[in-house]
Amino acid sequence: MPSEFDLIRRHFTRAAVHTDLAVGDDAALLRPRAGMQLAVSTDMLVAGTHFFPDTDANALGWKTLAVNVSDLAAMGAEPRWATLALALPAADEDWLAAFADGFFACAMRYGVDLVGGDTTRGPLTLSVTIAGELPVGDAITRAGATPGDDIWISGQPGLAALGLAELRGQLALPGSLRDRCLAALHRPVPRVELGLALRGLASAMLDVSDGLLGDLGHILERSDVGAQVELDALPLPPLTQHGIDPVLARRCVLAGGDDYELLFTAPPAQRDAIAAVAEHLALPLSRIGTTTATPGELLLRESDGRFIPPLLGGYDHFA
Amino acid sequence: MPSEFDLIRRHFTRAAVHTDLAVGDDAALLRPRAGMQLAVSTDMLVAGTHFFPDTDANALGWKTLAVNVSDLAAMGAEPRWATLALALPAADEDWLAAFADGFFACAMRYGVDLVGGDTTRGPLTLSVTIAGELPVGDAITRAGATPGDDIWISGQPGLAALGLAELRGQLALPGSLRDRCLAALHRPVPRVELGLALRGLASAMLDVSDGLLGDLGHILERSDVGAQVELDALPLPPLTQHGIDPVLARRCVLAGGDDYELLFTAPPAQRDAIAAVAEHLALPLSRIGTTTATPGELLLRESDGRFIPPLLGGYDHFA
Repeated sequence: MPSEFDLIRRHFTRAAVHTDLAVGDDAALLRPRAGMQLAVSTDMLVAGTHFFPDTDANALGWKTLAVNVSDLAAMGAEPRWATLALALPAADEDWLAAFADGFFACAMRYGVDLVGGDTTRGPLTLSVTIAGELPVGDAITRAGATPGDDIWISGQPGLAALGLAELRGQLALPGSLRDRCLAALHRPVPRVELGLALRGLASAMLDVSDGLLGDLGHILERSDVGAQVELDALPLPPLTQHGIDPVLARRCVLAGGDDYELLFTAPPAQRDAIAAVAEHLALPLSRIGTTTATPGELLLRESDGRFIPPLLGGYDHFA
Repeated sequence: MPSEFDLIRRHFTRAAVHTDLAVGDDAALLRPRAGMQLAVSTDMLVAGTHFFPDTDANALGWKTLAVNVSDLAAMGAEPRWATLALALPAADEDWLAAFADGFFACAMRYGVDLVGGDTTRGPLTLSVTIAGELPVGDAITRAGATPGDDIWISGQPGLAALGLAELRGQLALPGSLRDRCLAALHRPVPRVELGLALRGLASAMLDVSDGLLGDLGHILERSDVGAQVELDALPLPPLTQHGIDPVLARRCVLAGGDDYELLFTAPPAQRDAIAAVAEHLALPLSRIGTTTATPGELLLRESDGRFIPPLLGGYDHFA
């Protein structure tokens, strides 16, 4: 069996583009550009908890980095550097090669240098820490929403939840939607360009990893506001048009995790600018509600004006 | 059972000292000081591979951060920020509280802000990424040794290996040494002050995590030099004086891992300056050999002048 050092060298040494010293020493050396602040985030993915142990290794490599890139997108930061620590039950070279290919495909797509790593024996576990840059003061945190802001969601939330339900044998997706849902689940596309474009427009932002309503709750808590979500404004038609039951569609859009769409707030004065961003990026942005002055209160409004209670929170790994 | 979010908040939210925005958003925000380069490193510790599952949680918290701090010490960098990702089999609050106390004791000792984290369910696994600062160009890498440099080791290597052997029931340590060996194993002291003091003195450096000879091999490889180690110059007397068998002592000093002492090279012209550092820090520094012009060749010399082959490489998790 090749040694740990051989394996790391063979599959995880690729040219670093904007790093003074990358993998191979006790630490990597890098320099943020002048005037820039660093945004740093970390995620851990565990087999059996976050993905099926038999998940395609290439897709897993992509997703492992993509979910971290998404955290930086959610700050309006530009991804730059990442470290990867992985525990593997065995030194399976085919698996490592495919994983590395997927990981570096995402790294190259988003301009990320892999600058450090650790490989060890253990139950399959993947941990990435990512660092990006943004001009000092430009970060879009969860804390900036004020009452009366619009609430927006990017793209099509709910796809990954539908894909997961199909994989679990809980439903059979129509052929026209199946590939898109599985792609959303396995190869999520972090909204980096959107995050950058929303600097100066969005007042608060995060990426939806645990479900739209649960994650909206984090903005409400940090910004000390409430929210009213218009159920009619949710992007349901792209799902129901393919034959997805309207109740299931609503549930997937509101509570489905793992889509990595951006949920953000912005003053109504920015509507035109945001519409222009949507057009420029060819990415639908749905205005789904309004923040209110009642801290923590989350109301869902039906088309007939009735308010209904939120059904589902986020997905909590220990709940 | 408290939720994941509650647990994180309760035990891992402590004041950050030099961070613009710490735990709680999609990413932390931080700013390196002007003229500084960042040094970044990552490590993953897995129960059963790197530590016994029943290891004292407080000690484990200390060590989890300390081994990462040591990587920065080995570059001559000043530790500043860390992220922590942990997978836990269950949300055991007592364990988490003790772990956090040990982790933050180390963080406070070395001036590290915890700026990000992820907690999830899974087999006990700990992953830290650490970032520190050093003036641009001051890093002490593994690649700077030239033939004729002295080879130095800090402190007392071998203690952690003796402590591990005692825990495994392979030997019974004399009482006078036992506590010191177990402390070395459970609460290693990263040599940050030494790393900083060696800027401008050491030509190459790393921290000994896998064993002195194995890690020396990394310097030889990166610096394209060889080495001759004088066995008589090894810090064996502090072990043999306590009754440790000389053969075992030599083996522990040369091949024992987990001590996190600094192994470094320096031109002979720096001997006085290095002796002054040792005195100032009250830390023994042993000059144990010389680098040679034969790339990769590692010779061990007995007191009678005979050369013997290196017995043991580093500890390889997949070997």
